[in-house]
Amino acid sequence: MEAAARTNQNVGVTSWLPLFQNLKDKAAKLGKKLKKIGKEDPRRILHSFKAGLAISLISIFYYVNPLFTSLGSSSTMWAVLTVVVVMEFTAGGTLSKGLNRTFATLLAGALGLAAQRLAALSSHSAGEPILLSVFVFLLAAMATFSRFVPEIKARYDYGVTIFILTFSMVAVSGYREEELIKLALQRLSTIAIGVATCVAISIFVFPVWAGEDLHNLLPANIDKLACFLLGLEREYFGEKMGSGQILEEASFLISTYKPVLNSKPTEDLLANFARWEPGHGCFGFCHPWKLYLKIGALTRQCAYSMEAISSHISTSKNSKVVITDTEFKERIRIACAEMSSETGKALAELATAIRQMRTPSTAVAQHLSNATTASESLKTLSPAKDASLPEILQSATTAFLLSAVVKSAHHLATAVEELSRVAHFKRQDQAHKDSAVKPVAGGESPPHVVVEIEK
Amino acid sequence: MEAAARTNQNVGVTSWLPLFQNLKDKAAKLGKKLKKIGKEDPRRILHSFKAGLAISLISIFYYVNPLFTSLGSSSTMWAVLTVVVVMEFTAGGTLSKGLNRTFATLLAGALGLAAQRLAALSSHSAGEPILLSVFVFLLAAMATFSRFVPEIKARYDYGVTIFILTFSMVAVSGYREEELIKLALQRLSTIAIGVATCVAISIFVFPVWAGEDLHNLLPANIDKLACFLLGLEREYFGEKMGSGQILEEASFLISTYKPVLNSKPTEDLLANFARWEPGHGCFGFCHPWKLYLKIGALTRQCAYSMEAISSHISTSKNSKVVITDTEFKERIRIACAEMSSETGKALAELATAIRQMRTPSTAVAQHLSNATTASESLKTLSPAKDASLPEILQSATTAFLLSAVVKSAHHLATAVEELSRVAHFKRQDQAHKDSAVKPVAGGESPPHVVVEIEK
Repeated sequence: MEAAARTNQNVGVTSWLPLFQNLKDKAAKLGKKLKKIGKEDPRRILHSFKAGLAISLISIFYYVNPLFTSLGSSSTMWAVLTVVVVMEFTAGGTLSKGLNRTFATLLAGALGLAAQRLAALSSHSAGEPILLSVFVFLLAAMATFSRFVPEIKARYDYGVTIFILTFSMVAVSGYREEELIKLALQRLSTIAIGVATCVAISIFVFPVWAGEDLHNLLPANIDKLACFLLGLEREYFGEKMGSGQILEEASFLISTYKPVLNSKPTEDLLANFARWEPGHGCFGFCHPWKLYLKIGALTRQCAYSMEAISSHISTSKNSKVVITDTEFKERIRIACAEMSSETGKALAELATAIRQMRTPSTAVAQHLSNATTASESLKTLSPAKDASLPEILQSATTAFLLSAVVKSAHHLATAVEELSRVAHFKRQDQAHKDSAVKPVAGGESPPHVVVEIEK
Repeated sequence: MEAAARTNQNVGVTSWLPLFQNLKDKAAKLGKKLKKIGKEDPRRILHSFKAGLAISLISIFYYVNPLFTSLGSSSTMWAVLTVVVVMEFTAGGTLSKGLNRTFATLLAGALGLAAQRLAALSSHSAGEPILLSVFVFLLAAMATFSRFVPEIKARYDYGVTIFILTFSMVAVSGYREEELIKLALQRLSTIAIGVATCVAISIFVFPVWAGEDLHNLLPANIDKLACFLLGLEREYFGEKMGSGQILEEASFLISTYKPVLNSKPTEDLLANFARWEPGHGCFGFCHPWKLYLKIGALTRQCAYSMEAISSHISTSKNSKVVITDTEFKERIRIACAEMSSETGKALAELATAIRQMRTPSTAVAQHLSNATTASESLKTLSPAKDASLPEILQSATTAFLLSAVVKSAHHLATAVEELSRVAHFKRQDQAHKDSAVKPVAGGESPPHVVVEIEK
């Protein structure tokens, strides 16, 4: 029996070993992942320390006796709660949540007190709780409904939650607590201390500005489009065009634009937070963040055309159409190469101009005009007399789709011009003289919100 | 002087009047907006009442004395807080938040107690608060960093917040409170009561299932694409094609696909919530929500091609190219009409199949094969000998882009087939016999999350 038990034990150990190995593998994988996340944007590590710091600072209220007794035990908990909930990655996020929390608490506290006093007027003894329940029900229902308004959802969602919470608490707890006003003031002051701590740490300790992230995200996205176009020119319309091997490589290059297709939520979020941020660095308080959203939308417009080009390329890779009209094909290739390289250069210049906060150079107009000329040159082309439609389409469709990209790039250039005018970007010549223009800190690092790429 | 004062008063009144008028107009506008939001999806009104009900129910704990005294005053507040924060529009949302909150509180409470006991072992009197601060700092920093992992962010973000919160509170407050374990258990039980109330109301009172919303969103989006194609066929490739007036009307019709371009965040959110929901109605617990995301991605793929078609149409509306080769043009028109109408019908049938949870009928394959035949027929076409490239491109590009849509529709049909197989949808013949198949409740109502359409 002893032997049997030992065997069982052995079996136990051996059956646990692969599980242990499995766990070890998973832990190693997780470690690698975490390391990658930290490396991608080191500000994430800093943010984690900042959050830890804020909570530790607030907990000092607990340990330092005079402060603690002046605020009351349960109120101090509210400071901890505030810090945990309000601290966000960007300064704008923290400000947005902090201000929402403070003002919602103020408003709901005052309303709650009023509801409490009103209910106390009721002569009947059961009247007070019934009246209070009705108030809480009505206000909670109305406030909940207001969250379906898209504008409120976008900017004040957190404030509405806090409003319902505080109103319910004040109205309901008033039924029990004697010194309601004193309690409310205590709670408000602890919340204010919590918010002030978070905001101060967000703004003064290695701040992460949502506005700056948005300002860096746009040129990064435009650069991705430029990359696509320049890659297309090099790998697909280069001299060696038509060889299958090159196409294989190209399929890697031409997916650079993909993340741009789904960039809208990130941009909306950053612009929303950026509006809450005070002026900082090169960005004034009234920086035209709305124009950034417009540029973002036009960038996506370009990316949609690129998606069509990319799907055409992957289709024609598999097609068995043999193009016999080589002269026609060659002329189209030259036009396509010109369009993609010139538009790519124009986009790259636009991205640099936004990044350096200067008006786009005249080179943009020059490149775009070259691209337009190439696009117009297609109009004079005639295919050979015996060409069939698929043959023509195979060569010419990319050319047509590229013309669409050229057109979108024109719109994009106009929007960037508008931004540089409204936001008082430096003139090109000034920017050249002024060697003090530094690239914005953390320039290339990706923004906090992860955009998943569709597979 | 009296007269002057009276004049001043009058001026005051008259200068206030427009402001009052302005306010009145704004209020009327807001009222209309709220009414529209309620009409779009009446479940929103129901949800508001449900939220009010949940909070009122919880506040009963306050009024009914025996319950109140058994739980303690400050703990009851936690029940109110839980209800306000956990109650979400969909059952899956409420479950996700409720379970996150409960398990995070449990885990963090246990860890907090352990940290507290560990710190109490310190012999030095100043050692305890210092050790506790270090623990809080480290745990808060690590937990904050974990939120940057996309998988954790998507599913457990709220849980991590609550984890940090509870751990800090238990670790820190342990320094003051004597009966820490009793307090922790009280708090846990109030949170459990709050979560149970929310979950029960979410699931049993007019439930809104995220899964059902997702299940309705997909066919609604596919229908939008079908609408675009059928509208295109009717208004653009109809017999009257070419007349400017028709094009003007068409530009309204052909924007139906636009909301689909940005449907990804809504679908991701709904699928995330749907995973938390128990089996309900026609959906089992392990319903393949992942396949819904795949179908959503393929639907967007179609929409990107439609964006290219739409931009081509608006471009060619302004172009001055006169097409002289009418026979070529007519043959392309017929092919395009066939492709868009057949693909549109196939998409509409796919949407109906998903909506009724049955395998797509053989008509889908028939329609798609017709569309493919029309697309293939283009290959035998030859333009007139004297046709210039822009002339050919103007007529033929839409045809090419439509071929891309036909191809995407094939992929979509395959994915819907896969879904119907994996999710055990009814066979076509069974569905016909079984007259008890009801359209899913709230079938056409748009989902809760508002998708903004880019302008």
